[in-house]
Amino acid sequence: MTDALPNIVLILADNLGWGELGWGELGCYGGGVLRGAPTPRIDALAAEGLRLLNFNVESDCVPTRAALMTGRQAIRTGAFQSVPAGLPQGLTRWEVTLAELLSGRGYATAHYGKWHLGDCEGRFPNDRGFDDWYGIPRTSTESLFTAAHKYDPEAVPLPYVMEGRRGGKTHNVKIFDEDSRRRIDGEIVDRTVAFMEKNAAAGKPFFAYVPITQLHFPSLAHPDFMGRTGHGEMADSLAEMDHRVGQVIDALDRLGIAENTILLFASDNGPEFRRPWRGTAGYWRSTYHTAMEGSLRAPFMLRWPGKAPAGGVSNEIVHVADIFPTLARVAGAELPADRAIDGVDQLDFLLGRQPRSNREGFVYYIKNEMRAVKWRDWKMHMIWEPEVNDGPVKLESPYLFNLIQDPKEETNVAVEHAWVMPAMRRMVHDFLQSLKKHPAIPPGAPDPYEPPVRK
Amino acid sequence: MTDALPNIVLILADNLGWGELGWGELGCYGGGVLRGAPTPRIDALAAEGLRLLNFNVESDCVPTRAALMTGRQAIRTGAFQSVPAGLPQGLTRWEVTLAELLSGRGYATAHYGKWHLGDCEGRFPNDRGFDDWYGIPRTSTESLFTAAHKYDPEAVPLPYVMEGRRGGKTHNVKIFDEDSRRRIDGEIVDRTVAFMEKNAAAGKPFFAYVPITQLHFPSLAHPDFMGRTGHGEMADSLAEMDHRVGQVIDALDRLGIAENTILLFASDNGPEFRRPWRGTAGYWRSTYHTAMEGSLRAPFMLRWPGKAPAGGVSNEIVHVADIFPTLARVAGAELPADRAIDGVDQLDFLLGRQPRSNREGFVYYIKNEMRAVKWRDWKMHMIWEPEVNDGPVKLESPYLFNLIQDPKEETNVAVEHAWVMPAMRRMVHDFLQSLKKHPAIPPGAPDPYEPPVRK
Repeated sequence: MTDALPNIVLILADNLGWGELGWGELGCYGGGVLRGAPTPRIDALAAEGLRLLNFNVESDCVPTRAALMTGRQAIRTGAFQSVPAGLPQGLTRWEVTLAELLSGRGYATAHYGKWHLGDCEGRFPNDRGFDDWYGIPRTSTESLFTAAHKYDPEAVPLPYVMEGRRGGKTHNVKIFDEDSRRRIDGEIVDRTVAFMEKNAAAGKPFFAYVPITQLHFPSLAHPDFMGRTGHGEMADSLAEMDHRVGQVIDALDRLGIAENTILLFASDNGPEFRRPWRGTAGYWRSTYHTAMEGSLRAPFMLRWPGKAPAGGVSNEIVHVADIFPTLARVAGAELPADRAIDGVDQLDFLLGRQPRSNREGFVYYIKNEMRAVKWRDWKMHMIWEPEVNDGPVKLESPYLFNLIQDPKEETNVAVEHAWVMPAMRRMVHDFLQSLKKHPAIPPGAPDPYEPPVRK
Repeated sequence: MTDALPNIVLILADNLGWGELGWGELGCYGGGVLRGAPTPRIDALAAEGLRLLNFNVESDCVPTRAALMTGRQAIRTGAFQSVPAGLPQGLTRWEVTLAELLSGRGYATAHYGKWHLGDCEGRFPNDRGFDDWYGIPRTSTESLFTAAHKYDPEAVPLPYVMEGRRGGKTHNVKIFDEDSRRRIDGEIVDRTVAFMEKNAAAGKPFFAYVPITQLHFPSLAHPDFMGRTGHGEMADSLAEMDHRVGQVIDALDRLGIAENTILLFASDNGPEFRRPWRGTAGYWRSTYHTAMEGSLRAPFMLRWPGKAPAGGVSNEIVHVADIFPTLARVAGAELPADRAIDGVDQLDFLLGRQPRSNREGFVYYIKNEMRAVKWRDWKMHMIWEPEVNDGPVKLESPYLFNLIQDPKEETNVAVEHAWVMPAMRRMVHDFLQSLKKHPAIPPGAPDPYEPPVRK
């Protein structure tokens, strides 16, 4: 049975905004050649499968990765913000990860890239369902430490590239500095390809989770790509990303397993807001860490030759938490029944068997604060902060935008479209009720974690 | 000789922003399905030819149309702002229009749509090189008059749809009200098709200038398209526009003249800023009447089967004034030698015979005020007003933006990229010098106009 299961390759880019990505010369998400870096391999990937225009993520690296790994919105797991080394962080072991689900179905599992869901023993990828891992436990920002003025490793620990195997301990490989930051995506993809080769040869279904580190700042490209585009490090890094994705696709094709492999490519959140690494959401407004569409919508594409129709494009709403139940279904795995799962199975929609998504909306948090609700064509903002650090304004009278007619979220239609507000309010009510029934895990909760008794 | 000349069809949309237009399901300019109206015909048009990502227009309907008709930036012709009925306006008869040039080469010429370059005898299209015209002399705004509260036609004249033939007088056809506004683009395209049929049958080369009225406010679709999209009048109007373009393409194909016809599709300026008809520049920031990229960049595509390679996309800089010398060359016409022509011949670039545009930049005016300069990847703002009516700020120290690295024009790099500033300053200097040599015609100048003696 298990040898009929399809392989799964999930490439997750870091801080790659909707506007950054080109459809190569067609500039599908509006970027590509406009950003100085055509992306022909990623373009081809989408042209051969499905591209979502309304794929929604959480507000930051950590909450999106937590939702992806658990199918639960990050407010539930407590992993709703980035936490530096030395402070409690990550998913409790009570959570069931996607890797654990797939591993239970006989998949070989590997994590190559950026984890950010726990940096102590028991919470590393090799403790959470992955047979093998290599990468960074936290985030690329730390590669700036060692070269920084007066950096003191006694006060703040040296960052390392790490690796680990199931049943063993995660250990340091090398210091994570500017040089290793430039090289890590190449190493990640080399290991991914080797992992695919090994399991293809063994005829074992595999799950390769590949959270590459580009374009997160410092967006420094591999030495082979430095100066490649003539438009600076951001564009060079984008060109490298396109090449890395191409390497994975080439390996799938070379190994003859493309038709038995679901390839997913997505980004964890909207574009960077910091300068000089500032990104762009293109068509949409603002950056991550906001509740604007530039934060919510991230690139997403799926390629599965012979299963998902080529050239598909959809503006239907999908949420990153949906990946968990969707891939569980692919693998025939049962979802945990003792907790709230926010994700919904989107397999039939993603494979073109039905035109509509199985989701009409979702509630959106920044850290532990509910900021907005999206439903059908509309979005309601309860707290308004169009740019990071503008200062959030709690709205006594929420704003409502029609995202088709007003994509930049500029014209409040809460009066004209008053009928929509009750639907929005109901979603808020229902979500808060489910949080009462299934109390959220507090951030930084230590293991072992015991969920509170429910009434 | 003349029977070997290619036909020219130039469709000019009104207030169609960069972000409004879809590449159909591919959303090339980022819009289409996101705006609630897929645009499969316009998408196909571009897929069969060339699409420009950096086609630049003037700040408003009138100056762009003046530059298109004369090859001269609007500051030179005095036609640099919209002027209502009853006030002096339009191009002086001293200007040489594109229609006059092509007519002189034996082309049959017609203007169906919105003129806005003069509304008195001697300045209508049939006085300025067009054999036939039908449409509105000024703008779609006037269709709101008759239904408006306390509208007084004694105080402000009734607006009319008009028509005229070469050698005759332009006369009123019917009142331009909401109903005729809804129907006019259908009439425009019907007349265009009849004109093409007649000249194709006669074997006479023709120039059809088709400045349709959508999406200018009030964006009211033809009754056949009302409610078509389910996303309101803007989306319905966009769907109608796509259909109208398709009607022209179908006629070219049906008449068997597609390979001997250059088909151009462009917009006159950036998206509308007024609500509820507000448009979007998608990837770019702001609306028309500003110096932001959302104002400067407009959709442009060219189809010429067998001559222009299919699927071309370019981020090279082209200016609307370039259409005049480019089409003059197509027709083998001589440019007027006694005046400043700002446009440059782009034929070899547009047909893929050379990879680069023949232009590196241009100066940008709003009305008679120089606001900004674009050159290669950069733009310098001398006056800063990111949104209409923000209030322009004269910058003592101009802003410089890198449009590849910073498409939203947010990070001034005048210090980091200081070497660019002298090139910008030189362009300003050169343009002002040419205005000294060829003094600008004052707005509202009456005919006959005699240019000042030059030193």
